Amino acid sequence: MAGADSIRPVVWEDGAVVLIDQRRLPLEEVYVRCRTWQELAARICDMTVRGAPALGVAAAMGMVLAGRTALIEHAGDGAGFRAALQDASKGLFATRPTAYNLPWALREMEQIWNGGGLDPKQTVAAMERRALEIFEQDLAACRAIGERGAELITGERPVILTHCNAGALATAGYGTALGVVRSVYARNPRLHVLVDETRPLLQGARLTAWELMREGISCELITDNMAGWFMRQGLVTHVVVGADRITANGDFANKVGTYTVSVLAREHGVPFLV
Amino acid sequence: MAGADSIRPVVWEDGAVVLIDQRRLPLEEVYVRCRTWQELAARICDMTVRGAPALGVAAAMGMVLAGRTALIEHAGDGAGFRAALQDASKGLFATRPTAYNLPWALREMEQIWNGGGLDPKQTVAAMERRALEIFEQDLAACRAIGERGAELITGERPVILTHCNAGALATAGYGTALGVVRSVYARNPRLHVLVDETRPLLQGARLTAWELMREGISCELITDNMAGWFMRQGLVTHVVVGADRITANGDFANKVGTYTVSVLAREHGVPFLV
Repeated sequence: MAGADSIRPVVWEDGAVVLIDQRRLPLEEVYVRCRTWQELAARICDMTVRGAPALGVAAAMGMVLAGRTALIEHAGDGAGFRAALQDASKGLFATRPTAYNLPWALREMEQIWNGGGLDPKQTVAAMERRALEIFEQDLAACRAIGERGAELITGERPVILTHCNAGALATAGYGTALGVVRSVYARNPRLHVLVDETRPLLQGARLTAWELMREGISCELITDNMAGWFMRQGLVTHVVVGADRITANGDFANKVGTYTVSVLAREHGVPFLV
Repeated sequence: MAGADSIRPVVWEDGAVVLIDQRRLPLEEVYVRCRTWQELAARICDMTVRGAPALGVAAAMGMVLAGRTALIEHAGDGAGFRAALQDASKGLFATRPTAYNLPWALREMEQIWNGGGLDPKQTVAAMERRALEIFEQDLAACRAIGERGAELITGERPVILTHCNAGALATAGYGTALGVVRSVYARNPRLHVLVDETRPLLQGARLTAWELMREGISCELITDNMAGWFMRQGLVTHVVVGADRITANGDFANKVGTYTVSVLAREHGVPFLV
């Protein structure tokens, strides 16, 4: 039994990116170490790492890996160095089209390697600082989301329904939707969570339930199609989900099934938090 | 490739009840032969046979099996004969609490074996006639449901969403919800069907998709949580589902997830047929 908030799916460690292999959870907790951006890109493609914010952190760190390799392979050749980073950026961009954070992180990194003014060695050092900053900022953002969300979820025994995994595993740590859950739990341990299994890839069943059980938070796994029944019985007080991307007007895109849950929530007057 | 309407999940054959083993579909088409009511009851419990109308047919035939055994074991002992049938009726009743047809069929049979006026041999013959009649009536009812439903589903290219399996496999044959689908298809082969996979037991994925592909009806399998997305895109023209039981005021009970589909259908103005 681990303590609260101990899960870090993407970590920069000694010139490598270390990932929890999310395909093997919950049965096995295995870590994989990527030393090149290509290895990391393959791990994004095969879902070893997933979750919009976690992918942003991973992409940023992937560019640092690319920079370290390019420093060696293109020593003294600034144009070759930048061309290699351009290739890596395109390669990482192509791995996952859905989440916002991945292209955002690549643009952040591009401002450094394509911004001029730094030599290759300085560039890699600056990219590494920025990647770690993105990691820390995401963690801080999740904690802030958690606190803000928790203020909205009061009541003696809140029951939160969640879909997919917007947990520590989907972020640098702590989670967005599960960040709210963690913050509510810290204030009120009577919290109960209903976990949509989230077909077809079962992120709810495999990842969210694993996270919550690891933290000792009371939870039940349900099939996606049961959400309506639980709401109809008055057994859900709040819905909390994450988002792949959110537009300026508040529209958002998220895992298939989220829309169904939102229609159900409106039908039953259950507050829906993104 | 079999012709239309060739599926019969419960058949009376030569003093035995022959079932398609629905647990092994769609990978294998295997038939099991029950010679005693206890064998049949076990097959109801383990889901070899399922579907409210099919269970009604099976229960009626199960009582015939019980009668044939009791004729031999309690020859010349009318009280013993009736006691054996009472046991069988209780045993079959206990197999599945949800569907309406099973207890209804047992009451139908009880009117024969507990009604007086017939000796044991005549009783068994009358029960056999009644069981076959229930089979034929269910088939005729399904065809009538199909035709009535098909009158309501017009349009150039109807797209029907269905949940669980209310098909030939759930009835004596032809199906209720899929009876409507078959009748629409006979009128308009451009029909397309979206099949909810129907967690947790995947009756849609395993049974409904198998039936439709066998009949050559265009269909797509979706996860339950995708139904809202398809409706939102305007890609569903009608929802057709079966029911475990329907009350006099039109309320009905059916497989978990049906309620969610009904809320989605109302939200999107999609006609919902039970």
